[in-house]
Amino acid sequence: MKKLLDSPERAVADSLAGFAAAHAGEVEVHGIGEDAGPVFVTRAGGAVSGKVGLVSGGGSGHEPLHAGFVGDGMLDAAVPGAVFTSPTADQIVPALQAADGGAGVLAIVKNYTGDILNFETAVELAEMEDVEVATVVVNDDVAVEDSLYTAGRRGVAGTVAVEKIAGAAAARGDDLAAVKAVAEKVVAGVRSMGVALTAGTVPHVGKPGFDIGDDEIEIGIGIHGEPGRRRVPKASATEVTRQLVEPVMSDLNLTQGDRVLLFVNGMGGTPLLELYVVYGRARALLEERGVTVARSLVGSYVTSLEMQGASVTVLRLDPELEELWDAPVRTPALRW
Amino acid sequence: MKKLLDSPERAVADSLAGFAAAHAGEVEVHGIGEDAGPVFVTRAGGAVSGKVGLVSGGGSGHEPLHAGFVGDGMLDAAVPGAVFTSPTADQIVPALQAADGGAGVLAIVKNYTGDILNFETAVELAEMEDVEVATVVVNDDVAVEDSLYTAGRRGVAGTVAVEKIAGAAAARGDDLAAVKAVAEKVVAGVRSMGVALTAGTVPHVGKPGFDIGDDEIEIGIGIHGEPGRRRVPKASATEVTRQLVEPVMSDLNLTQGDRVLLFVNGMGGTPLLELYVVYGRARALLEERGVTVARSLVGSYVTSLEMQGASVTVLRLDPELEELWDAPVRTPALRW
Repeated sequence: MKKLLDSPERAVADSLAGFAAAHAGEVEVHGIGEDAGPVFVTRAGGAVSGKVGLVSGGGSGHEPLHAGFVGDGMLDAAVPGAVFTSPTADQIVPALQAADGGAGVLAIVKNYTGDILNFETAVELAEMEDVEVATVVVNDDVAVEDSLYTAGRRGVAGTVAVEKIAGAAAARGDDLAAVKAVAEKVVAGVRSMGVALTAGTVPHVGKPGFDIGDDEIEIGIGIHGEPGRRRVPKASATEVTRQLVEPVMSDLNLTQGDRVLLFVNGMGGTPLLELYVVYGRARALLEERGVTVARSLVGSYVTSLEMQGASVTVLRLDPELEELWDAPVRTPALRW
Repeated sequence: MKKLLDSPERAVADSLAGFAAAHAGEVEVHGIGEDAGPVFVTRAGGAVSGKVGLVSGGGSGHEPLHAGFVGDGMLDAAVPGAVFTSPTADQIVPALQAADGGAGVLAIVKNYTGDILNFETAVELAEMEDVEVATVVVNDDVAVEDSLYTAGRRGVAGTVAVEKIAGAAAARGDDLAAVKAVAEKVVAGVRSMGVALTAGTVPHVGKPGFDIGDDEIEIGIGIHGEPGRRRVPKASATEVTRQLVEPVMSDLNLTQGDRVLLFVNGMGGTPLLELYVVYGRARALLEERGVTVARSLVGSYVTSLEMQGASVTVLRLDPELEELWDAPVRTPALRW
């Protein structure tokens, strides 16, 4: 294993310390350095009074998800666990409290068993402290039903769309029920599927998460390297992209005239050069079906350490979702 | 070789086609699809009347450099060559012409022999077409004097600072001589050094650009995988970062009270988790010397295909450079 780290044990804390220093004035990282409390990330200014707060979290190793999305128009707090490990309720509770500006908090949870359980516990505890919390569960991965860490579909890159759009709804002043309803509309309309060319290596494990031959790829991979649908021989970008986009289009029942957001996400070790090739191929497949790609995002936003690979996410749009997607956002990783 | 490409021959054109579609309305890519002319990238709206135009270019494989930096507050046109291959004068001439809003054009050239020669030829040809062109050469890499493709120091990630700051000077209305002077101030004050953990694979070559053992890293690597200063055993992020930052600080003669931009750049295959660790270590070394890190950038902006590794760039700031760095920028890859 070769990584730019000091030790597996310090990887997440050291990275968060660098993140905090690089984005001082925008975000604040609690629980690192001399602060011995639980680790969580908030906006530098704290909760916005009267605005619904947004909190998400999950295992580390998927950066910039989630801490990179803390800021105006997106999250108020993020809770990073150890690498590929759910954050604890101890971490989530103070994040929920810190995000509460008096209008309640929406917790955005990717569908992994550990995340679900720990967020549930944390929400109960926060509610005892008089924080009103609603929860939405993201489960956009069409690759598999149930998986190594999941009952039901996994939550993957579609989470970015949920966080961005719900964040815009909160920023425009929607109340908690309305922000939750918008988030649920995104969850209902977003689907993803990914492919791995290589495996990432969890620092404290020290070897790749799975074995994969020089001539094969894994279609339907999860963001922790969980098994996908099938192992196939390596193939052209056109063919691989078809195997990602067709299940997504089918699951969404996309038809002529639909408008979508197309998001091609890198898994951490794949360069932009390749992501734009996949984007072009995915877009062509959607357009062949008469679907209009009205919004686009291309980049490595939900990663799996240094895994080489990509995922394709499609979100069915309507005028409200387009407006909320377009609304200003100012976070370390996403800004317009 | 496993890559998300259809073929080595189509890699750059396919990627540019995807880039053009994803950022339609912001950029325009000429010479792909049915347009059989030379390949170059411009703002969607064309040159801005009365503003100095900025053009850069170089081999592909370093995305988002340079095409990702076309837009308000940065470049007016970019010229992508084949992978790791200088663009031809045929491509550069129409880019210089397209960027000319009547106030002349600044060409920003990374110091590689092929780039220098082809830009020189193109500038002569463009001047025959009555485009006034000034040129600045970026040579920020302190690792080696002369190299595989270079006489003198190589131009690497410092190019982003040159393009951003000169772009802001042009946007505020500076004339060609003034924009050139600002760009030269950045060139004089910016230094970089990189490290490779693994090698990238040029698509049409099909195997890694160099051999490197599982337990060694290359200090002072170039962005084409050119040899660096030395091959050493893998080491902690703290130790590796020290080997990058110390030569940069020495070369810049940084002393107590200096203010700098610290830019930690990923080589394409290294995740953000690790880049922030390097950032934290680099910042600590600068602060130990009494240097203030006044501005920061962390991300994969000048890549070497899927190479794992990072570079550290330091730019000596003054009030003018800070103001120009902070000025708004709206490009596919950099926006604030």
